[in-house]
Amino acid sequence: MKELLRVGGGVDLSAIDTSGTPGFDGDKDAGEDALAAGTEELTELQEKLFAASRSGDTRSVLLVLQAMDTAGKGGIVKHVVGSVDPQGVEIAAFKRPTPEEEAHGFLWRIRKRLPTAGMIGVFDRSHYESVLIHRVRGLSPLDEVETRYAQIVDFEEELRAAGTTVVKVMLHISRDEQKSRLLERLERPDKHWKYNPGDVDERAYWDDYMDAYRLAIERTSTDSAPWYVVPADRKWYARLAVQHLLLDALRGLDAQWPTADFDVEVEKRRLAAT
Amino acid sequence: MKELLRVGGGVDLSAIDTSGTPGFDGDKDAGEDALAAGTEELTELQEKLFAASRSGDTRSVLLVLQAMDTAGKGGIVKHVVGSVDPQGVEIAAFKRPTPEEEAHGFLWRIRKRLPTAGMIGVFDRSHYESVLIHRVRGLSPLDEVETRYAQIVDFEEELRAAGTTVVKVMLHISRDEQKSRLLERLERPDKHWKYNPGDVDERAYWDDYMDAYRLAIERTSTDSAPWYVVPADRKWYARLAVQHLLLDALRGLDAQWPTADFDVEVEKRRLAAT
Repeated sequence: MKELLRVGGGVDLSAIDTSGTPGFDGDKDAGEDALAAGTEELTELQEKLFAASRSGDTRSVLLVLQAMDTAGKGGIVKHVVGSVDPQGVEIAAFKRPTPEEEAHGFLWRIRKRLPTAGMIGVFDRSHYESVLIHRVRGLSPLDEVETRYAQIVDFEEELRAAGTTVVKVMLHISRDEQKSRLLERLERPDKHWKYNPGDVDERAYWDDYMDAYRLAIERTSTDSAPWYVVPADRKWYARLAVQHLLLDALRGLDAQWPTADFDVEVEKRRLAAT
Repeated sequence: MKELLRVGGGVDLSAIDTSGTPGFDGDKDAGEDALAAGTEELTELQEKLFAASRSGDTRSVLLVLQAMDTAGKGGIVKHVVGSVDPQGVEIAAFKRPTPEEEAHGFLWRIRKRLPTAGMIGVFDRSHYESVLIHRVRGLSPLDEVETRYAQIVDFEEELRAAGTTVVKVMLHISRDEQKSRLLERLERPDKHWKYNPGDVDERAYWDDYMDAYRLAIERTSTDSAPWYVVPADRKWYARLAVQHLLLDALRGLDAQWPTADFDVEVEKRRLAAT
């Protein structure tokens, strides 16, 4: 599945079927079963990573989630990340920057939320906003946006060198699918809070966003921090795919239960004496 | 269940059956079923609290977990708190203070980790360490410890006034149960990382800790921030009881789905036109 989702130079987002299920030929029920089946391994690998950090392993995983509105970032966090122990997870949702954040370089607020040793970090939006919405809506001068791609590549290489496995995911939905999800938010009073009139305005820039994603992917997909485009019209598939990518990243780290730095038999005797 | 667990002045911790299941007369299987059954309501109430914060509701919940080692704080976070959307949870584990933290008053580091609007905060250990281990092991002068009880009462009243419902839980295990749980950690290589030889040393102070808990509970159990002592020899019961206390706190807040601050029909037409 992983290799089918990986993208880089020459990616054509319009050619990717957003309702596809690359690498998985089952239906929704089968997909949900597969997601549930993967949870146990994900939970154990997360706990091992966390445990290893207690004996000095400084590695971590960072899941970067980028997507158009309604594509399902929240669902990924709730249903995939939410299946592991919350004590091993650090979630950062990046909203519109504060004035203090705007006074610094675009990576300043990002660096403050990087996962610490042993943790799975999740970025719900990320530094990529500074080359996506900033490009599309002109929030930064174009020449400044242009310099950011290389800064991002350097930044992510720095993360890799420091032991953080970066998993970058674009959840890819169709413009029509977004329309029906926005409509659902309007039709359900318990979903009104998720609706923002600005979401409709952004739809006019859909093609510009796709172009900005394409550019970002082309300029920043590297061997150490590749991009994955996950078709997301089917929520169950997107969740399964991201779980798969996380499992792959954690398996790659192969964290081990720490060995005792005490004499187990001595401790058993000391304990027995209490 | 709540009223059976609530304690205050005159609490006798040694008289509480740590293997009891106050307010629940089912067995382990029934308890696990009840926990699973409560998850749906907990999830919905958490989401409502979170949603309400998006339209200005500043309220939050803070679960304070205190316990002797191995009593199951981690299991509560994993199995009870972990059942809701991690995006609505803020967990703070308070370890040995850093030199910077020690240079400040004992509430300084606590204030920085209070739950923000709409969140369920969890303190894995808390400001109470400053009147528990500090009292038992003499980490602070006794007269300083004495002044902290009133400071804590004022602090928690301030939280209540600011809209934070504080739920304070002591997970109460027996000294024998701790012994068998420590032994299990020694017998399983995948649990060695959770074992600390210092845990055995602390067992010599068990009665002093119980006395420090009794004092803390007597001095700081108030109407706005009462203490609950949850028998915890049976993990399934402790989890069910804490879920019950969280459900009760969230029901008390009665957060509502925000009403739309836009014209739903107008938005439907705008969306249809895109």
